[in-house]
Amino acid sequence: MAPGYSMSKKQLQDRLRRAEGQIRGLQRMIDADTYCIDVLTQLNSVTAALRAVGIGLLDDHVRHCVRESVEAGDGEDSVEELMAAVARFSGR
Amino acid sequence: MAPGYSMSKKQLQDRLRRAEGQIRGLQRMIDADTYCIDVLTQLNSVTAALRAVGIGLLDDHVRHCVRESVEAGDGEDSVEELMAAVARFSGR
Amino acid sequence: MAPGYSMSKKQLQDRLRRAEGQIRGLQRMIDADTYCIDVLTQLNSVTAALRAVGIGLLDDHVRHCVRESVEAGDGEDSVEELMAAVARFSGR
Amino acid sequence: MAPGYSMSKKQLQDRLRRAEGQIRGLQRMIDADTYCIDVLTQLNSVTAALRAVGIGLLDDHVRHCVRESVEAGDGEDSVEELMAAVARFSGR
Repeated sequence: MAPGYSMSKKQLQDRLRRAEGQIRGLQRMIDADTYCIDVLTQLNSVTAALRAVGIGLLDDHVRHCVRESVEAGDGEDSVEELMAAVARFSGR
Repeated sequence: MAPGYSMSKKQLQDRLRRAEGQIRGLQRMIDADTYCIDVLTQLNSVTAALRAVGIGLLDDHVRHCVRESVEAGDGEDSVEELMAAVARFSGR
Repeated sequence: MAPGYSMSKKQLQDRLRRAEGQIRGLQRMIDADTYCIDVLTQLNSVTAALRAVGIGLLDDHVRHCVRESVEAGDGEDSVEELMAAVARFSGR
Repeated sequence: MAPGYSMSKKQLQDRLRRAEGQIRGLQRMIDADTYCIDVLTQLNSVTAALRAVGIGLLDDHVRHCVRESVEAGDGEDSVEELMAAVARFSGR
């Protein structure tokens, strides 16, 4: 069974497709002059979905790329690259 | 001239349309088994675009809804609602 | 009664004093070679406390400075300054 | 030479001590009724410092604990724990 943060390729695609639909929804909301706060709530829901995709990608990266590098004895560069990705992803 | 964080309805829509295109790009990247870190970089670019939209929406909200409430002498509720939106938007 | 996000000066100071104590706790944890993940959990708790202080400060700012500017008919600059603060606070 | 995100124990402690001093500075600013926006700027500087400490801790964790688990052939749990920490640290 897949662990907590892992996502299959299909799960990643499903999430992205839903996020895409939500962004079209945002465009309709703005066209219809929906109350700002309600648009923001929908926007937060899209960014939350994309963050989950990001965690899924990082999980996959650690489980495969980083692990293989470490097992091959040259984990240094891949750990450095991972930390750069985590730092950017955390918005810092 | 529009100040720093304001966005016209057209600017909001342009940003959302571009974010929508980027999310389709993400789906293609995953289909093509693109290297995780490159997918994450693209994902960060979408979330940055959506955050800019969020700031634009908040700016619009403060400039119109909150301002009108304050001018009408009943700013209390609208300030409370604004702070709740800022808190959620900041991911807290 | 104070609304949801407002904090009195005393509440802000209490939170800051507690955050200060937690940071000293972090130093002791690192001295004692505490397991990284446990140090991170404590660190997240400090940043959450500081974010609550930030929301409290923003709330106070909107309720007083922004409101007074709007009531005095010159809200433009103060709204611009507020949005810049929200943008930085949200880490964007 | 230490790579980009690594911090020695001494560097972590120096950063934490400085953050502690900044939080005392925040208390003085509030006592002195400093303009909210200036207090917020100082607050953002503390949280940025703490985030750098968090990245340093994560880096150390990946370089030592995760790496050792992977080399010992039982990386599964430590990757899961790492992802949970990254998810919480990224505020999601």
